[in-house]
Amino acid sequence: MALKSFIEVHPDSHFPIQNLPYGVFKPQPGSSPRPGVAIGDYVLDLSEIASAALFHGPLLNNSDCFHQPNLNKFVSLGRPAWKEARATLQKLLSATEPTLRDNATLREKSLVPMSRVELLLPVQIGDYTDFFSSLHHTKNCGLIFRGPQNPVLENWYHLPVAYHGRASSVVISGTDIVRPRGQAHPTPGSPPYFGPSRKLDFELEMATIVGPGNDLGKPVDINNAADHIFGVVLMNDWSARDIQAWEYIPLGPFLGKNFGTTISPWIVTLEALEPFACEAPKQDPPPLPYLTEKVSKNYDVALEVHIKPAEHEKPSVVTRSNLKHLYWTLTQQLAHHTINGCNLRPGDLLGTGTISGPVRLNILCSLEF
Amino acid sequence: MALKSFIEVHPDSHFPIQNLPYGVFKPQPGSSPRPGVAIGDYVLDLSEIASAALFHGPLLNNSDCFHQPNLNKFVSLGRPAWKEARATLQKLLSATEPTLRDNATLREKSLVPMSRVELLLPVQIGDYTDFFSSLHHTKNCGLIFRGPQNPVLENWYHLPVAYHGRASSVVISGTDIVRPRGQAHPTPGSPPYFGPSRKLDFELEMATIVGPGNDLGKPVDINNAADHIFGVVLMNDWSARDIQAWEYIPLGPFLGKNFGTTISPWIVTLEALEPFACEAPKQDPPPLPYLTEKVSKNYDVALEVHIKPAEHEKPSVVTRSNLKHLYWTLTQQLAHHTINGCNLRPGDLLGTGTISGPVRLNILCSLEF
Repeated sequence: MALKSFIEVHPDSHFPIQNLPYGVFKPQPGSSPRPGVAIGDYVLDLSEIASAALFHGPLLNNSDCFHQPNLNKFVSLGRPAWKEARATLQKLLSATEPTLRDNATLREKSLVPMSRVELLLPVQIGDYTDFFSSLHHTKNCGLIFRGPQNPVLENWYHLPVAYHGRASSVVISGTDIVRPRGQAHPTPGSPPYFGPSRKLDFELEMATIVGPGNDLGKPVDINNAADHIFGVVLMNDWSARDIQAWEYIPLGPFLGKNFGTTISPWIVTLEALEPFACEAPKQDPPPLPYLTEKVSKNYDVALEVHIKPAEHEKPSVVTRSNLKHLYWTLTQQLAHHTINGCNLRPGDLLGTGTISGPVRLNILCSLEF
Repeated sequence: MALKSFIEVHPDSHFPIQNLPYGVFKPQPGSSPRPGVAIGDYVLDLSEIASAALFHGPLLNNSDCFHQPNLNKFVSLGRPAWKEARATLQKLLSATEPTLRDNATLREKSLVPMSRVELLLPVQIGDYTDFFSSLHHTKNCGLIFRGPQNPVLENWYHLPVAYHGRASSVVISGTDIVRPRGQAHPTPGSPPYFGPSRKLDFELEMATIVGPGNDLGKPVDINNAADHIFGVVLMNDWSARDIQAWEYIPLGPFLGKNFGTTISPWIVTLEALEPFACEAPKQDPPPLPYLTEKVSKNYDVALEVHIKPAEHEKPSVVTRSNLKHLYWTLTQQLAHHTINGCNLRPGDLLGTGTISGPVRLNILCSLEF
């Protein structure tokens, strides 16, 4: 029988006791930011749970990681600490455990209605990298930018192509994004014009939150890469296509992207995703040894984009896809990122790139419409 | 008559009282990092000067900005505070001022021989951006990558082309860089191979250290951009040309660059550079209004690259150039970076791109040899 919480969780909720995603929140406008997990319609305040000395395990009982304004310290501790926290919290929230269930004072202090809290960026992001790992998206972009002769470049099948994005402008879901102004150049030969972007677009991605990371000059082995992934967030890689098209050759996207990137407030852990693990697509040509994994995993996570124009009453679903369509896995992305010695730090953000599926409805950014 | 310090400064020193660049150092291996300025063969410990209440001015007398482990707080204060600090320090160090000169105890505490200190990164770098602003370098790269038909792309004359680099791997001068491993693909049609880079290269640049910065969605006006530049550092944008050539299309440089970027420990302020200001090159076509400056300045700063192979006893000068050869000015770079609403934060690093001059000897990276 599935584990149940003493907290009532609606069957449609994204936050059953099996999930327990991590975030950072303020219980009240004046409070200091602190880590929490989502459970049903509540946020469990981990600073209160830590203050009540309920993290008994050997790795967390003396840690101040839940008395921080972000999750960086917790994610730096690594998988054994993450497992210990998850076990503690699942037990504490389960229907059969009296510690929190029967302690009204502690419940009052530690369980905050989600409708009341202010959610913040869950981690301080040192660096943000965006990959380009969906074959279908790559083909679609290639068709648009280069035509049908050469939609996928030769290097794409050999390495997870990526570029560095802007960390300062990563914001939490719900933050307003100002329509960027910039140069565009719709007509070859004529001078560029300046103005608000006319081609503002979204890209639905997921993104890895890096755990312990690695020292400069010390790559992460592909078969240890999963231990450096704390979890994943949803991401919208806002893109101004007109600005991007004019600026991006030869050094890649810059002002067409860095005016804002939105991530979800909740980090879903790899532990919570494990029941949804599935085989990654077969790679042909086979990857070089440093990218060859003993187990090559994707995750079956259904993704949807809803858009609500101002004049509409309800949002419409404009696309559906799935995280399982990634060609390069999250672990291959991470191992590739470090193979040259580049150091990742706790809390770094690694976007997957737009995840498009094999059928037309699954195309996840309107560039491809 | 030129201002003189009571500290003897060799005429060849880079650190006369007219310069006073800022850095961060540990006076002894166990000490905490603190800000300092270089003067002759000494570092003046600004935490000691602040503790002695010698920053009398209205903006700094109650500030803890010199009791920080980096310069981020000081650079965030803006130009009036920077001018106040400079005036205080130039007076304190001048030959005619007894306060420090005649106080043996304070001299002992605050003046540390440079040979003894450990220098650290002067700022915590939130984001690192690299521009591509030297016309001569751009032409040379274009000739190599695309041939003589089309050496400079059309967009280059209209905007300061740039890409995001990696902040985590920016290190202080003197830090060992491990030769990166990665994929390369010297022969079209054959599969790529994996191994240590065979084409490790340098790029001599300078880089802006951002001051106060701007909020997301609020661009910096071009004519206020100088007030967001605290100063400049020297920079070596290490590049693995074989890795870069294979990976960089279509999203720009990634593993070919992010294994390490070296900056100088000392930030030379714009105030100190002012005597070396010169007119920037005339831009044709004229830039769009948001990039048009009332005063368009470059700085006459002679640059040299010396290389010492392990088997040689002495370094050789391999190139000479000058910061004045930048086509896009530092202020144009900064204003362009924010025009779409992208936010800069105190301590951000904006590289100029390789600065090559008009004659062959001035080519500053060996890509161009």
